[in-house]
Amino acid sequence: MSPLTTHLRVPGPTPLPDRVREAGSWQMVNHRGPEFKALLERVTQGLKRAFRTENDLVILTASGTGGLEAAVVNHLSPGDPVLSTSIGAFGDRFGAIATRYGADVTKVEVEWGRAADPADVEAALGRMIEAGRAPRAVLLTHNETSTGVTNPIQALAETARRAAPDALLIVDGISGLGAVPFEADAWGLDVVVTGSQKSWMVPPGLAMVSVSGRAWQAAERATMPRFYFDLASHQKAMVKGETPWTPAVGVCFALDVALELLEAEGYERIFARHAAVGAATRAGIKALGFELFADPPVASNTVTAARVPPDMDWAAFNRALRGRGLVLAGGQGKLTGQIFRVGHLGAVSVNEILAALEILEETAIEFGRPQERGRALVAAVSAADSAATSDKENTVEATAPVGSAA
Amino acid sequence: MSPLTTHLRVPGPTPLPDRVREAGSWQMVNHRGPEFKALLERVTQGLKRAFRTENDLVILTASGTGGLEAAVVNHLSPGDPVLSTSIGAFGDRFGAIATRYGADVTKVEVEWGRAADPADVEAALGRMIEAGRAPRAVLLTHNETSTGVTNPIQALAETARRAAPDALLIVDGISGLGAVPFEADAWGLDVVVTGSQKSWMVPPGLAMVSVSGRAWQAAERATMPRFYFDLASHQKAMVKGETPWTPAVGVCFALDVALELLEAEGYERIFARHAAVGAATRAGIKALGFELFADPPVASNTVTAARVPPDMDWAAFNRALRGRGLVLAGGQGKLTGQIFRVGHLGAVSVNEILAALEILEETAIEFGRPQERGRALVAAVSAADSAATSDKENTVEATAPVGSAA
Repeated sequence: MSPLTTHLRVPGPTPLPDRVREAGSWQMVNHRGPEFKALLERVTQGLKRAFRTENDLVILTASGTGGLEAAVVNHLSPGDPVLSTSIGAFGDRFGAIATRYGADVTKVEVEWGRAADPADVEAALGRMIEAGRAPRAVLLTHNETSTGVTNPIQALAETARRAAPDALLIVDGISGLGAVPFEADAWGLDVVVTGSQKSWMVPPGLAMVSVSGRAWQAAERATMPRFYFDLASHQKAMVKGETPWTPAVGVCFALDVALELLEAEGYERIFARHAAVGAATRAGIKALGFELFADPPVASNTVTAARVPPDMDWAAFNRALRGRGLVLAGGQGKLTGQIFRVGHLGAVSVNEILAALEILEETAIEFGRPQERGRALVAAVSAADSAATSDKENTVEATAPVGSAA
Repeated sequence: MSPLTTHLRVPGPTPLPDRVREAGSWQMVNHRGPEFKALLERVTQGLKRAFRTENDLVILTASGTGGLEAAVVNHLSPGDPVLSTSIGAFGDRFGAIATRYGADVTKVEVEWGRAADPADVEAALGRMIEAGRAPRAVLLTHNETSTGVTNPIQALAETARRAAPDALLIVDGISGLGAVPFEADAWGLDVVVTGSQKSWMVPPGLAMVSVSGRAWQAAERATMPRFYFDLASHQKAMVKGETPWTPAVGVCFALDVALELLEAEGYERIFARHAAVGAATRAGIKALGFELFADPPVASNTVTAARVPPDMDWAAFNRALRGRGLVLAGGQGKLTGQIFRVGHLGAVSVNEILAALEILEETAIEFGRPQERGRALVAAVSAADSAATSDKENTVEATAPVGSAA
C-alpha cells in the first residue's frame, strides 16, 4: 500500500510549491517571441539579485553537471594548471571534468565530512607557483551535496585571490546558493554555477552560470572545445532576450514563478529558515541516536548526512521509510551504504522536518532501536528556535559590505 | 488587446495536449527512486518503438543541439574525416559542431529549399576515399527545420553505406521522427537524435539518442572530449534505471504521458495525419498567393516555409498575425526576413491549420492583398482529403519489412 503523503527529502529535486507546479502546466510559447523574451530578462535579473552579482548570467538547458562543464571548458585550455579543492563526490566530479578536457589538475584532498582549509589551499597554490605551474583556475565547491558540508567559500576565495591573483575562481554553487548567504561579487567569484532543482524550488533542467569580466577575457583565449555549452553564444543570444538553442521553456516558467515567491519571502528570511531547518534536522537525527557525518561547525543547512549504524540493514530500513512515505537519499561514491542524507532546501519549513523525523523515529523503533517517543521532535523544534535567533545575526554579518568581517 | 486564443504554429516548441500539460504540474519524485526507474524504462521502450530500433537509446537533459553534439563527440576523434550533408541551417550547425571539436569536415553543399541528392553524396564520398580521407562518419539531416524539406534519408543512407561501408551514419531526426515514417534499424542508421519539443508533444528539455553496436565500438576509440554528453555514462546508468546526472524530471513525466497518447493513436495514423496537415498547409498558403520555399516533391510534412513577397513588410505583417493570435516562425540564418515558417507537427490536426490559414487570409486582406474569402480553406481541406488517402499507401509501403521496397 502506498502512503497517502510523500515526503521528498532528497537534496534535489526539491518539492515544488503549488504555484510553481501550476506554471509547469502552462501551454508552450514561442521561445523566440516577446513573452519569452520578457520572462528571460525577468528571470535573469532575479537570479543576479540572488547571486548578488552584476556580472553577466546565462541560463543553460542542462543539469548542474552541465553547468560545471560549461564553467570549465569556456575558461581553460588543455594543459592549463588548475587547482581542484574537492571535499566530496561533487568536488571530485568538478575536477574530473577539467581532467577530461585536458587540464593539468592538482587536487587538494580533504577528508570527506570536513571543509577545505584555506591554509591547505594557500600551500597548494604556493607549490604550484613554485613549480612554474601557476594555476589558471581554482575550482571550489560551495556546498558539498554528497557529505552535507558547506565550505567557508569567502575565506577560501580570499586566500586564493591573494596567493594566485591571476587564477579564476570557479565555484560550484549548485546546492547552497539561494538558501544560505552568498555574495558572488563581494567575494570576488568569477564563475558561479547553480541548478534549478535545488534551493530554487523548480524542476531540474536548468543550470545558471554567472561570468565575470575577467572570466570573459579568459574565454577569448580558452581553447577547450565547446558548442552547446559555449557561454559566449549564450550571452550573445541573451542580449536579444533569447537563448542560442531551444530552452526548457516549462522549467523557465516555473523558475519565473519561484523567483517571485523567493523575493516575496526575502532572502534574509530564507537564510534564517534554512538555518532553522538545518539545526532542526541535525538535532533530531542526533536525538534518534544517529551519528552526524559532517564536522559540526561546517555542517550544511541544505543537506544533512548521517552514518548508517554498523548493525543496521540500510536497504531494509530505507524500504520501511519509503513505506511510510519518507524518501531520503543514500550515500554516493565511496559513501554508498555508509551514510544516508536528508535534503532540507528550497520549499521546506521546520514542520516538514518534523514529519520526516517522526517517520524516522517510528521506523527506528520498529527496527528495534528503542526511542523515547517524540524526543527527536522536541530536540528539533528547540534547535530550530535557537538557530533562528542566532542566524539572524550571522546573516546580517554575512551580507554586510565587503571587508567589514573576516 | 491580446487575442483570446493563441495558435502556436512554430516548428517547436509544439502545443501540448491537456494531459501532457497536467503531467507538467506533477510533484517531483526522487530521480534515483523506483517510480522514476519505472518511468525511464517505459519511456525508453516507447521511444525505441517510435525510432523502430533495437539499439540502445539514452535520454539527455538538453535541447536537440545538445543531442547533436553528443552524436558527434562520442563517436569521432579530432582529425577524423567526416562528410556533412547540409541542406539548411541545422545541417550547417551539425557540421559546425564536428568542426568545432576538430573533425576534418567535408561539406556537400545543397541549395536551400532542396533535398540532398544521393548521387552527390556518393560522389563526395568517392572523392574523400580517393584522397585517402575515408570518412569516419556521414552526418545527415532527416527533416531540415529551417527550410521545410525532408531528405530521402533511406536512399541517402543506402548510398552512404554502399560507398563508404565503414562510415557511421549519424542522423539529425529532431523535427521529423515521430511524425513521418522512419526506420532507424531497417535503414541502417547508427546514431539518431530527436528532441522532446517536436513531434513528441512535450516541452523542450530532452534530447533522445539511439546508438548502434558499431557506434558503441567507435565510441571506445573516439577521443573527442565529453563528460556531460558522454553516452557511455548514460548507458551505464540507464541499465540501472537511472541517468548519470539529474534529469529534467518534469519533462520526463510529460514524455511518458505523450508516448501513451501517441501509441493510442498509432504511428500509422499519426503519419497520415501529418501528411494531411502538411498538404493542407501547403495548399492553403499557395491559395493565398504565397510562394512555397521547398522543392515540392521533398516538402516536409512537419514544417512549411513560404517566401515573404518582396513588397511585404514582414515585421508589420507578423505583428498583425500575432495580434490575431497566430504565432509563426521567421527565417533563420541567411533566410532571415526572406521566408516565414508554419510548424505543423505534434498535436495538430487539419482544424488547427484551417484556423492558421483563416488568420493569414484575413491579415493578408488587411494588408491589401485581395483574396476570395475562404479560398485557402477550401484548398486546404481538399488537399488534406487527398493526402490522407494517398499517404495511407505510402505509409504502409514505408513501414513494410526491410528489403520489400527500394
